[in-house]
Amino acid sequence: MSVSQNPSPRGVSHIFPVRVYYEDTDAAGIVYHANYFRFAERARTEMLRSAKIDQSTLFGVLGVRFVVRSCKVEYLKSARLDDDLEVHTKIVRILGASLLAKQVVQNDQGPTTLLDSRIACVGEYGRPVPWPLEVRSALTTY
Amino acid sequence: MSVSQNPSPRGVSHIFPVRVYYEDTDAAGIVYHANYFRFAERARTEMLRSAKIDQSTLFGVLGVRFVVRSCKVEYLKSARLDDDLEVHTKIVRILGASLLAKQVVQNDQGPTTLLDSRIACVGEYGRPVPWPLEVRSALTTY
Amino acid sequence: MSVSQNPSPRGVSHIFPVRVYYEDTDAAGIVYHANYFRFAERARTEMLRSAKIDQSTLFGVLGVRFVVRSCKVEYLKSARLDDDLEVHTKIVRILGASLLAKQVVQNDQGPTTLLDSRIACVGEYGRPVPWPLEVRSALTTY
Amino acid sequence: MSVSQNPSPRGVSHIFPVRVYYEDTDAAGIVYHANYFRFAERARTEMLRSAKIDQSTLFGVLGVRFVVRSCKVEYLKSARLDDDLEVHTKIVRILGASLLAKQVVQNDQGPTTLLDSRIACVGEYGRPVPWPLEVRSALTTY
Repeated sequence: MSVSQNPSPRGVSHIFPVRVYYEDTDAAGIVYHANYFRFAERARTEMLRSAKIDQSTLFGVLGVRFVVRSCKVEYLKSARLDDDLEVHTKIVRILGASLLAKQVVQNDQGPTTLLDSRIACVGEYGRPVPWPLEVRSALTTY
Repeated sequence: MSVSQNPSPRGVSHIFPVRVYYEDTDAAGIVYHANYFRFAERARTEMLRSAKIDQSTLFGVLGVRFVVRSCKVEYLKSARLDDDLEVHTKIVRILGASLLAKQVVQNDQGPTTLLDSRIACVGEYGRPVPWPLEVRSALTTY
Repeated sequence: MSVSQNPSPRGVSHIFPVRVYYEDTDAAGIVYHANYFRFAERARTEMLRSAKIDQSTLFGVLGVRFVVRSCKVEYLKSARLDDDLEVHTKIVRILGASLLAKQVVQNDQGPTTLLDSRIACVGEYGRPVPWPLEVRSALTTY
Repeated sequence: MSVSQNPSPRGVSHIFPVRVYYEDTDAAGIVYHANYFRFAERARTEMLRSAKIDQSTLFGVLGVRFVVRSCKVEYLKSARLDDDLEVHTKIVRILGASLLAKQVVQNDQGPTTLLDSRIACVGEYGRPVPWPLEVRSALTTY
């Protein structure tokens, strides 16, 4: 279940800042583990938006959306209230109807959480659908 | 902004148990204030279900759903991890296309949170719609 | 239960942007009603931060934190996926150990949600505590 | 990244029911992917509670708590509003200061989500700590 910490050497990572608020923490004083998935999705969404793709028009116009098919997450250190996190996102592979994304959530102490996700492109009823051309070309930026 | 703690004398309250998990708490060690709205909605949903109405068929078949129009919430005491809460729900008034619900969230120390909500019945595009007859008669139980 | 839409004429509002992600929405296609409380708290937190106060040092150093005592919320219109919201926050009154904040959540169609909150300053065990001087002077900016 | 669907042949699974509410869903009409982690944690918590261990006394008395170290999650099918889910939890291995849990979230169509988690026992500052004896013997039930 180990997740490589090194993004692939080629290409650049998209970096997205996430501030930690009370809503994100739990009674152990740390960011609740499920919430890193929210941060990761915000980052992927903004990565797409920076390539001029937003999910609501994607679904409204092309009838497709992204779903997470699987994920390996590794929690290295705890993030805390008021932490100024960065989510580094890198697309490591683009397949016909899915992609592999590697994400690292960092605070000022270094990486806190690693996520390796397989994201699929699906149509209205959840069936796999090949990436629309404009999405595919946008994705290749990262 | 005071919310009366006494449900109306007539009728019975619906009681719904809610256990507090880590996901519900925040770094202050207490239930995060927004989450009482989730508890309150779970309770209202189960109150309806106990009257044989579930929201997905309501929307799928009759094309209507419930929305919260407004709410007054008062936080009296903090609930904590592992607390065994009870949400007491009482419908205090049924209007043509909305209702007023009074809810009290209690732990073993007494009331922690009071919510007075106005819930509306809306159609597919969010427009107010009169209560369907079967919903109205179910609501009058409480 | 009506909430005035006009912030008090004096002073300025703090404006905080909130993007709507999938995590914020529900199966009705709109922002889940409880999540406006999260947006409102993010905005209040950033308002304080812009006055050089952050909640973790506030609690760590001065032993005080903010809690929501009560709130009136009014839902005018629904916000949706990808909406670029603004939370306008105005402190309308500062009392000895609490304050009243008026917040408006807007999308590009205008106000969607109004929140009038009473926020208290409490010590480690949840007891009311007068505002520390540095907090009080920071608050008077807004 | 494949996750075996078959819990180990020995021992029994703990079964915990989870109802899907609006709060759990997103604008795609399905359960938001991060929320399965909340369901999984509720189930593990109740598994422990059924063995007379609750997390707040565990932390308050013994000074230890559980943290998720890593997880592989696989999303097979989407769960939806009003679904009556079951979380099947099986501890597949107990190590000195951690354990491996296999969980399956099912609706009436079969498995929707598989989670393989490594859960560690940590002390107050997040350092690994051997399982307290009473926890270890409780865990061996499942």
